[in-house]
Amino acid sequence: MSLLFLAPELDPQSWIKHLHRQDPHLDVRIWPDAGSPEDVLFALSWKHPLGVMKQFPRLKCIASLGFGVDHVLRDPDLPAGVPVTRIVDGGMVAAMSAYVLTAVLNYTRQFDRYRRDQARKAWTPRIPKHPRDVPVGIMGLGHLGSDAARKLHAMGFPVSGWSRTPKSIDGVASFAGDDALDEFLAGTAILICLLPLTPETQGVLNRRTLSRLPAGAYLINVARGEHLVEADLLAALESGHLSGACLDVFRQEPLSESHPFWSHPQITVTPHVASLTYPRDVAPQIIANYHRVRAGQPPWNVVDLKRGY
Amino acid sequence: MSLLFLAPELDPQSWIKHLHRQDPHLDVRIWPDAGSPEDVLFALSWKHPLGVMKQFPRLKCIASLGFGVDHVLRDPDLPAGVPVTRIVDGGMVAAMSAYVLTAVLNYTRQFDRYRRDQARKAWTPRIPKHPRDVPVGIMGLGHLGSDAARKLHAMGFPVSGWSRTPKSIDGVASFAGDDALDEFLAGTAILICLLPLTPETQGVLNRRTLSRLPAGAYLINVARGEHLVEADLLAALESGHLSGACLDVFRQEPLSESHPFWSHPQITVTPHVASLTYPRDVAPQIIANYHRVRAGQPPWNVVDLKRGY
Repeated sequence: MSLLFLAPELDPQSWIKHLHRQDPHLDVRIWPDAGSPEDVLFALSWKHPLGVMKQFPRLKCIASLGFGVDHVLRDPDLPAGVPVTRIVDGGMVAAMSAYVLTAVLNYTRQFDRYRRDQARKAWTPRIPKHPRDVPVGIMGLGHLGSDAARKLHAMGFPVSGWSRTPKSIDGVASFAGDDALDEFLAGTAILICLLPLTPETQGVLNRRTLSRLPAGAYLINVARGEHLVEADLLAALESGHLSGACLDVFRQEPLSESHPFWSHPQITVTPHVASLTYPRDVAPQIIANYHRVRAGQPPWNVVDLKRGY
Repeated sequence: MSLLFLAPELDPQSWIKHLHRQDPHLDVRIWPDAGSPEDVLFALSWKHPLGVMKQFPRLKCIASLGFGVDHVLRDPDLPAGVPVTRIVDGGMVAAMSAYVLTAVLNYTRQFDRYRRDQARKAWTPRIPKHPRDVPVGIMGLGHLGSDAARKLHAMGFPVSGWSRTPKSIDGVASFAGDDALDEFLAGTAILICLLPLTPETQGVLNRRTLSRLPAGAYLINVARGEHLVEADLLAALESGHLSGACLDVFRQEPLSESHPFWSHPQITVTPHVASLTYPRDVAPQIIANYHRVRAGQPPWNVVDLKRGY
């Protein structure tokens, strides 16, 4: 029985080290050196090559190495009936909230403008935007969105959230479903996207929705590049309707050198680093699920394949 | 009986509006139009001209418009026996902590490096510094330092503080007095200065103290420019011992155009905006003290003139 590492973009060494610390007897294979296909019980995936999962007839679990599973579910040839799990890790939640907080604070405390002032040696104090005057709207109130909502609320920002179903978080206004979207957007000065990527949320940040934000609003996308219609953001910045954006995710990663986001003065680009998976932190939950599956038990943190998250 | 506004750098209009909202009958004068010197009961100061306070024979209180009173106490001709008060405001404490958090997060989440990457269109993900691996040391544990300490601790950073006398803050290691300074510095990867400016703390960030920090440490100064020996910071960055600094305060403000900090790639300059006083928020405590003084009562938030804060 083996665990197969199927993440061509990631360096397997640190993963193997921390998995072996949890279980020194673990038989780990690194794709494409899978050995006998019948041995593979458990697959770790980060953007696995499409179609490869169906080669393993005794596969009992596909574990995403991140919070999102869109990169697993985009495979049209996933073996039927095999549960797909995701990582749920407090450290990754905290890292995402810290990134979101950094982006919000750089905007409200105007560090971006002071950096441009510094480049031209201009001493130009400005009154900071007071948190109470900057309502923040979070799309997606799962583990990540609800933690960010609580932390921004604690910093003094009025916070609201938009999700498929209503959520109850102290101090956070809940808007649920398509009918509530426009009202949610109309009251949002900083829009943060933390939605899972599904067919319903693909392109949700578009000309229509961005136009519903109040003039001067700011966008933070830390979910997936496919949530944003990139040309619509550029048009909204060009018209002056939006004042800026901080983007960690893109439709094509790495962002191509010719992409207009790189040199846009109102856009901050970071290379998909808002919430990375630390092998040391998540190896225990992977090994726990591996042993559950070996023992015939259902794994933890299984996603709803119909819902897509 | 009048209240005299003695803050040549500040626009008095917003102050007068909010003071009058608290007391519509208040007689406010704006220096130099003080009217009869005998009328002046209460003076509001932000960097008042030296020697001017002794002109008012019935002055009963000098209220600093900021947290610090160093700009009041630098006047060698303060009238003897007149209490000096300072602002103590939760909003200003929160604003300072938010600035400190922004500076800490920009460093640990490497936004500064990603901004340089963006300028040259380089997609270079880096593992973020995990908060647990970045001990933060705060010099000064008064209202400002202790709030920043609590918030950084809540974000997962190991936090220690250095102050004149020992302080007890949950989860924050306390170092007190000169004898403990070197040990405090040796365990600090991000050093934050929030000390009051006094003869004892003048120049406390110098060649000797910076050399006690571990290699690669980062400096945040949000207290007063005079805490830092500027040439010693430049030398510590030049040698590679320090990795960078975020500075909001300077010995000469505005920073002169020829100052080397402006163009230093490892220094972030902001124009003394970490914690501004909002007239709307602090007018109530000023008016409360004005009425106490009129009634012959001692004002609140009086500073210890010998200690200097």
